[in-house]
Amino acid sequence: MSLLVVGSVAFDAIETPFGKTDKIIGGAGTYICLAASNLTDSINVVSVVGSDFPDSYLQLLKDHHVNLDGLQIIKGGKSFFWAGKYHNDMNTRDTLATELNVLADFDPIVPESYKNCKYLMLGNLTPSVQRRVIEQLPNSPKLIAMDTMNYWMDSAWDDLMETIKLIDVLIINDEEARQMSNEYSLVRAAQKILTMGPKYLIIKKGEHGALLFDKTNVFFAPALPLEEVFDPTGAGDTFAGGFIGFLAKTDDISFENMKNAIIYGSAMASFAVQKFGTDALVGLTQKEINDRVQLFVDLVQFDINRA
Amino acid sequence: MSLLVVGSVAFDAIETPFGKTDKIIGGAGTYICLAASNLTDSINVVSVVGSDFPDSYLQLLKDHHVNLDGLQIIKGGKSFFWAGKYHNDMNTRDTLATELNVLADFDPIVPESYKNCKYLMLGNLTPSVQRRVIEQLPNSPKLIAMDTMNYWMDSAWDDLMETIKLIDVLIINDEEARQMSNEYSLVRAAQKILTMGPKYLIIKKGEHGALLFDKTNVFFAPALPLEEVFDPTGAGDTFAGGFIGFLAKTDDISFENMKNAIIYGSAMASFAVQKFGTDALVGLTQKEINDRVQLFVDLVQFDINRA
Repeated sequence: MSLLVVGSVAFDAIETPFGKTDKIIGGAGTYICLAASNLTDSINVVSVVGSDFPDSYLQLLKDHHVNLDGLQIIKGGKSFFWAGKYHNDMNTRDTLATELNVLADFDPIVPESYKNCKYLMLGNLTPSVQRRVIEQLPNSPKLIAMDTMNYWMDSAWDDLMETIKLIDVLIINDEEARQMSNEYSLVRAAQKILTMGPKYLIIKKGEHGALLFDKTNVFFAPALPLEEVFDPTGAGDTFAGGFIGFLAKTDDISFENMKNAIIYGSAMASFAVQKFGTDALVGLTQKEINDRVQLFVDLVQFDINRA
Repeated sequence: MSLLVVGSVAFDAIETPFGKTDKIIGGAGTYICLAASNLTDSINVVSVVGSDFPDSYLQLLKDHHVNLDGLQIIKGGKSFFWAGKYHNDMNTRDTLATELNVLADFDPIVPESYKNCKYLMLGNLTPSVQRRVIEQLPNSPKLIAMDTMNYWMDSAWDDLMETIKLIDVLIINDEEARQMSNEYSLVRAAQKILTMGPKYLIIKKGEHGALLFDKTNVFFAPALPLEEVFDPTGAGDTFAGGFIGFLAKTDDISFENMKNAIIYGSAMASFAVQKFGTDALVGLTQKEINDRVQLFVDLVQFDINRA
């Protein structure tokens, strides 16, 4: 089922206690597409880069079934660039550089050939840009999922509220859910956010897993306990890509199937953090993915035995 | 199956954003016993109080199948007292008072009638005191579980190492596991701690659930997402009490059954935090417990559907 992904395609420079990269391919859109490409093979992307973006990176995306007709390449422009350094605990980081460059004036244009998309994943971007994508679609997709961040809650609240009215699944982290709802309890936060528009809310808790809420149900997926985390960059986007990729592949948006989608998203994220940048998302085999998902099954499944 | 619990029986004074108590019944031993009493009905306790400890509190324990033959009542002595105040996030607290009183010179004496215990739960105490209990048992119990804390890692490391060689299940929190192993990754921490003596390690992560490790397996139990936490005091001890109570009741120490024991421990802890002190552990019905356990099943169970 055709999946449309909107999100940054960019350069990252990453430093962790395990090493340091030069400018490598990064961006929310990139992680979402690469993660989804491990599950589904018809992915369209809307994004923007500068003419400094290497052909080899464009080819990497094409090799992963990502259609680039909606990728604007701005002549003479520079691609979005982010640099960050993780602390020893890997849970906190310093941002060393954020250069919006061509992303600053990004006006998303959805090609005609993309307009019948059934699944839409809006990576973290200005809420008004996310909304302009939805507005270009003549038919409402079967499911729209969206990521956002606290920055937009501070700087573009009204726009954010207008945009989340149009979507089905909001994917944010625990800190963002608390800020958005002004509630500390994640259960209360979810109840409140589910009155703001989305039918489903996913709260990501990083190494502590993720919660899926609708108005009556809650599901919890753990993160896989790992011996080592090499690079957390893009883990949240990878999770979102695995989630939407699984839904697009199975074309089933029941709560039961969303549980599976979250497990697949978590599995993808568990791969992502084990290598630098997007390295771990490239070249995964079906067997590796199945084995990883089985680790999640083994981690949480039990047969209840009444006391 | 007879369960022996060793741990403090004490007074607590608690302040949370929701209210404040006078001196009420508290202590690790108390929480462990009350939690276990909801699952099994043959509980022996070894502990110490002063003559200031009210008969009504002793009666409360007796009413919950707790045999007090091993409870020393020191004439003219004062019971252990702890006072604390929780911050708004409920995850951090200030200790306002710690008066060891009769606990300072506690010399545990195991009555003859307790000596054939099959399950032993050592609540957090000086490691040498915990060891003196084990040394009084003529036959090794089927399972010994033990809690400890970072304070003993700092002040009684050698004693702690000697004691954990004698036990089966160590129950500590994530911060303590990291300190004990000098490893940040909980997987690596577990691998290291499992070479120090215990066959099983449970790492409690508070609101983020708990992990059970042996040398080859890992299991994760979530905490229940709650609308409101009124008082986290004793949650860890309650978890331990539910865990050991379930094992004593079912008399099955396989890894599979330990998964169930952890779910029951987590269920008990989820009750405990919903009222002040031990209030929520008193008067629970079997139906309430079953319903609560079912919430844990519903929260994490899924049928895997391969992509």
